[in-house]
Amino acid sequence: MRFARDTDVRPAAPGSWEARIAAGWDIGGNANGGYLLAIAARAMSLALERPDPVTLTAHYLSPGKPGPVRIETQLARSGRRFSTATARLCDASGTPLLQALGTFGELDDEGGPELVESAPPELPPPDACLPRSGPPVSGSGFGERVDLRLHPEDAGFYRGEPSGAPRVRGWFRLPDDEPVDTLALLLGVDAFPPTVFNANLPVSWVPTLELTAHVRARPAPGWLRCAFSTRFVVGGFLEEDGEVWDDSGRLVAQSRQLALVPRPRA
Amino acid sequence: MRFARDTDVRPAAPGSWEARIAAGWDIGGNANGGYLLAIAARAMSLALERPDPVTLTAHYLSPGKPGPVRIETQLARSGRRFSTATARLCDASGTPLLQALGTFGELDDEGGPELVESAPPELPPPDACLPRSGPPVSGSGFGERVDLRLHPEDAGFYRGEPSGAPRVRGWFRLPDDEPVDTLALLLGVDAFPPTVFNANLPVSWVPTLELTAHVRARPAPGWLRCAFSTRFVVGGFLEEDGEVWDDSGRLVAQSRQLALVPRPRA
Repeated sequence: MRFARDTDVRPAAPGSWEARIAAGWDIGGNANGGYLLAIAARAMSLALERPDPVTLTAHYLSPGKPGPVRIETQLARSGRRFSTATARLCDASGTPLLQALGTFGELDDEGGPELVESAPPELPPPDACLPRSGPPVSGSGFGERVDLRLHPEDAGFYRGEPSGAPRVRGWFRLPDDEPVDTLALLLGVDAFPPTVFNANLPVSWVPTLELTAHVRARPAPGWLRCAFSTRFVVGGFLEEDGEVWDDSGRLVAQSRQLALVPRPRA
Repeated sequence: MRFARDTDVRPAAPGSWEARIAAGWDIGGNANGGYLLAIAARAMSLALERPDPVTLTAHYLSPGKPGPVRIETQLARSGRRFSTATARLCDASGTPLLQALGTFGELDDEGGPELVESAPPELPPPDACLPRSGPPVSGSGFGERVDLRLHPEDAGFYRGEPSGAPRVRGWFRLPDDEPVDTLALLLGVDAFPPTVFNANLPVSWVPTLELTAHVRARPAPGWLRCAFSTRFVVGGFLEEDGEVWDDSGRLVAQSRQLALVPRPRA
């Protein structure tokens, strides 16, 4: 249960939590943003005594390296069904890595009006998809921390043949049958390679400024179907929209991140 | 220049700002969420000394009524191009109305790689569209604070004939030729009637939990074309995605909000 262990947080003082960025969650040396957010979210969840992030936003302030971190949480409002808090995650030197704002609750399956204007992505079976590996993650351990399988149509960029469509689809689960809870969904929405790698654009690096995840339901056991797409590379920024569907065919999470599109040097 | 005047903030102490929820910005008695966010954003912009919200998230904690408010801002990180802050907006009794987290910068038009996989909504000319009025806003002043024109195909819900598609398209500007700056865009992304009013669902009230706006560019003068849509009413929540395009055909903002879908009483 490595994800649970590597996102563990311990109370240090009222509103203050100790945790650790474990080794092996990095991509090119920097800890994955979804992993960092999951650590902060676990502290927020404990602070609010609510198990599930319903809507959670992170602004990324500095890259995270393995080592101890501290999370300061602050209650914004405690309500009947939902509670809201802020969190600030800093490294041992006090450098802020992430600032978060989230509303937490307890997700149930009570029903109510439903309307679904979309469908889970169609994917070849996991064994016919490609594991996350290759140049973008070589020398980093992240590919072993998650079990990702990319749709072959969206994996061409690994061999220098981007599909031309800024889209990435695939399967997600945790290794060793570790269940994906609503905190691990935060990892799932930031675990895939950037959509823009499949566009024919001179962009090789897209630092995330902000990520917002909406969690709609606790996932059923099994593989998750994920789809990420970008529609607007405009003004020096791009958005990446994600959908995560569980094995029962239910939408369990949506995400959107805003990333910087570095301008080519003149 | 009523929008600028009614979102004015004055420094009260370091990191503390005074403002006022002006009368007439309400829908059914409660101040519009985009208007509240614009007040908080103005305080954040002044605190950070950065003019433009780049990505800004608000969690709505309590309804806002006309009267004095106070905004506490806190710096999260000051960077070379962007700075990040939190804001908490409380009424005179200290009740928190809104908690925000945003990254601000100075938007320019320097270019860089672009890719647009969508287009501005096609709309009849403003005079062939319908002003925002009718039952959902009767007795409230909001319809006079903004100049909205709804696409006739999306305005049927006013006469009890929803289109069936959870979509709302239309034009937006401020009255009296007041320019729409990047703070007024925050109003624009929350000014239209809920998309779900056009769905055939037993939903008449959708309180917003959270709204995130991404601002890509400063709008050119003139009308803005706006499109809002919902794809997932699932798990007791719905998202509403917005796009705002300026008169030059440029995407200037994207938004997404998460709203609660009250369950019909048993």
